[in-house]
Amino acid sequence: MSALTHIETPALLLDRDRLDANIQRMRNKLAAFNVVLRPHVKTNKSLEVTERLFAGGRGPITVSTLREADFFFEAGFTDILYGVGIAPNKFAHAATLISKGAQLKLVLDNLDTARLLADFAQTSGHAFDVLLEIDCDGHRSGLGPQSPLLVEIAQLLSTRGVRLSGLMTHAGKSYDSQSIAEIESCARQERAAIIDASQMLAAAGFNMTIISIGSTPTALFTKDLTGVTEVRAGVFAFFDLVMAGLGVCDVQDIAVSVLTTVIGHQAEKGWIITDAGWMALSRDRGTARQAVDQGYGVVCDAAGQPIGDLIVSSTNQEHGIISLRAGTLEPARLLPLGTLLRILPNHACATSAQHGGYHVLSEGRSLGYWPRITGW
Amino acid sequence: MSALTHIETPALLLDRDRLDANIQRMRNKLAAFNVVLRPHVKTNKSLEVTERLFAGGRGPITVSTLREADFFFEAGFTDILYGVGIAPNKFAHAATLISKGAQLKLVLDNLDTARLLADFAQTSGHAFDVLLEIDCDGHRSGLGPQSPLLVEIAQLLSTRGVRLSGLMTHAGKSYDSQSIAEIESCARQERAAIIDASQMLAAAGFNMTIISIGSTPTALFTKDLTGVTEVRAGVFAFFDLVMAGLGVCDVQDIAVSVLTTVIGHQAEKGWIITDAGWMALSRDRGTARQAVDQGYGVVCDAAGQPIGDLIVSSTNQEHGIISLRAGTLEPARLLPLGTLLRILPNHACATSAQHGGYHVLSEGRSLGYWPRITGW
Repeated sequence: MSALTHIETPALLLDRDRLDANIQRMRNKLAAFNVVLRPHVKTNKSLEVTERLFAGGRGPITVSTLREADFFFEAGFTDILYGVGIAPNKFAHAATLISKGAQLKLVLDNLDTARLLADFAQTSGHAFDVLLEIDCDGHRSGLGPQSPLLVEIAQLLSTRGVRLSGLMTHAGKSYDSQSIAEIESCARQERAAIIDASQMLAAAGFNMTIISIGSTPTALFTKDLTGVTEVRAGVFAFFDLVMAGLGVCDVQDIAVSVLTTVIGHQAEKGWIITDAGWMALSRDRGTARQAVDQGYGVVCDAAGQPIGDLIVSSTNQEHGIISLRAGTLEPARLLPLGTLLRILPNHACATSAQHGGYHVLSEGRSLGYWPRITGW
Repeated sequence: MSALTHIETPALLLDRDRLDANIQRMRNKLAAFNVVLRPHVKTNKSLEVTERLFAGGRGPITVSTLREADFFFEAGFTDILYGVGIAPNKFAHAATLISKGAQLKLVLDNLDTARLLADFAQTSGHAFDVLLEIDCDGHRSGLGPQSPLLVEIAQLLSTRGVRLSGLMTHAGKSYDSQSIAEIESCARQERAAIIDASQMLAAAGFNMTIISIGSTPTALFTKDLTGVTEVRAGVFAFFDLVMAGLGVCDVQDIAVSVLTTVIGHQAEKGWIITDAGWMALSRDRGTARQAVDQGYGVVCDAAGQPIGDLIVSSTNQEHGIISLRAGTLEPARLLPLGTLLRILPNHACATSAQHGGYHVLSEGRSLGYWPRITGW
C-alpha cells in the first residue's frame, strides 16, 4: 500500500471501487420500482462523491443543512430537499436559495411553523415549496399518518399561498432491527404510513405529487413501493459497522476507513496505542446496542483486511487504544511501532464528518483527495 | 438576548466573561507555585481564545496535532509541545516547523520511536527536542516511572544527537474521580511519578530541564508542585458538564454552549425536537459514567439559565430530542416552536470541534465571531 506511506495519519480513506459497487447495488435494487433516487448527501458532503451517485449528472438530492444546499446548488444541483424541520431563523436563508433558482423543498410537521412560514412568505413575497413530515414509527419527528393536523396544515398553506407538494417519512426504527424480516416489516410500515396520509389528504382534496420515503435498510429490502415516488437514503454509498451489524451489508463492503499509525504499546495490558482517537474516529458507538459491540471500530491492516479480533476499545482526543475484543493480546502479537492500520467506522456519517476530505483509493492506488464541507 | 436572534442555528456560543474568569482562576491557583502554565490549545483551537490565555502574549503552548502547531506558530507562538507520541510519518512535518524556527518539543515513550527519530535526525540533519512520556496512572501511554527503558532511551538519544530536555505526564485517571479528595490523590500521584522518573534519570547522569504535568482537575486541586516546572491543562478555560460532575467547576462556569431552535414537538411523548443533533453537540456522552448522567447536554434558556430538569435525551445527525430527565414533560411545559435554547456540553473539546468557530458574547452582547481550526 505505497499510496498510504506519504499520508500523515490520522486520515480518512475512501475505497472508490467499494463506493461504486455500493451505489450500483442501490441503483439495481430501485430499478425494479417506479421511483426516483434522491440520495441523502449528508453522509458524503462531497461534490465528487455526489457526482458518482449520478454518474456525473445532477439529480435530485436530500440535504441535512442549508450549508449543503448552498454548496450543491452552486455546483449545479437544483432539486434539493432539506430534510430537517425548518426553523424560523432559516427562512431568509432558504428564500435566498430559492430566489437564485433552487427548487428547494422545505419540511415541517406542525401548524405553528406553517403559520410562521406563510407569514414570512407573505411579507417577503417569496414562494416556498413544502413537504409535510410523517411519523411512520415513533422514532423522531413527524405527524401520525391519521393526524387531523395534516388536513389542517394543508388548508392553511393553500389559503396562504405556500405550495404543498408532498409528504416525506423516514423509517429510523429500521436501524434497531434484529433481522432482515424486521427490516422488511419496517419497510412495509414506512410505505403504509405515507400512503395512508396521502390518501387522507387526497380525500380532503389535496393531491401530493411527491411521496418520499427512505432509509438505507428499508430501501435495500423493500418489496413494494407502489404509490411511492422517491427514495431517500445516504449511508448506502459508504456503509459502516452498524449497517454490517444489521445484516444490510458485509464488513467487506465498507468504503470508508481511518488510516492510523501505531505510536506505542502497553505490553503488559495487551494495548496497542495509535494516533486515531475520537477526533479522527468520532465518538459514535452505534454498535454498542447491537449483538456485536465493535468498540470504536474494527482494526484492519493497511490493505483493509480485518486483523483477528482486534478492535479500538477506548479513545481519547488524539489517542486510540487497540486491544483484543476479549482477553489480553499477547506481547508477540502487538503490532510493531509505525505499523499503518485502517479502522472501519461504526457510523460512516459521524466518522467522515471529523475529516476535511477523503484520500481516495482504487486497488491500492491513490486517486487524489476529495474535499468535504462542514458547518451549517 | 437580541444578539442571538440573527444567528442561524445550531451555532456554538462562547461567553467571554466566563472564559476570562476561568482563566483567572487557573492563573490564581498556579501563582502559588513556581511553575509555568503551558495551556493545551486542543480545547479551543482558536487564536483569539489562546491570546486571552496569555493576556495577548505568546507563551508556551501544548498542541494535540501538528496542524495546531503550524497554525499557532504562524501566529507567533514559538514554544510548542506536541503532546501525542510522535509517529514516524510526522517526522518530516515536525522538522519543517523546527527549521522555520519553532521550538517544537516531541513526545515519545519507546525505544523503537527513539531509534527511528535518531535515524531521521541523522540522515536529514535536523535537530529534535524530545520529552519522554511517563505513565503515572495506567490511563493510556507512557513508561512507568521505574522503567529501566527510561535510561536506555536517554542513552540512545544522547549518543545519537537528539536532545532530551524533559519528562511529561498526564493524570488522565483524575477524570474518573468520585471526590475532590480523589482528585487530590491523583495530583499527588501525578507529581510523584514524574519526580521519581526524573530522579532515576538524574542518578544515571541525565538532568531534565522540563518536568511537565497536567490535567484540569489535578492542576486546580494540587497542593504541591515541588520539582515540577510546568503545568499543561486545557479544558479549564471552557469547563463542561464532565468537569461540573467531578465537582471541579459549577455548571454556571461553563463558557461554551450550543444555540438551538425548537423545530417541533411530540406532545404525547413529552418530547421537544430541536435542530441541534450530534453534529452540533458531538456524540460525547462523558457524563454517562458519572453519578448524574446529563444525556447529550443540559438545556438552558437563551440567557443560559438551566431549565428545570430538561436534558437532551437523544440525538440524530441534525435532530435533538429534549425531554425530562425522568418522566414525561406535560404538554403545557413544551417550549413553543421557534424558542431559542442553549445546550451545555458534556465535553467542551468534543462539542467545540463540531463547529467552525465561536459566536462570542459578553453580558448578552455580541463581540463577533472567533474562527477555529480543524484537521491534522
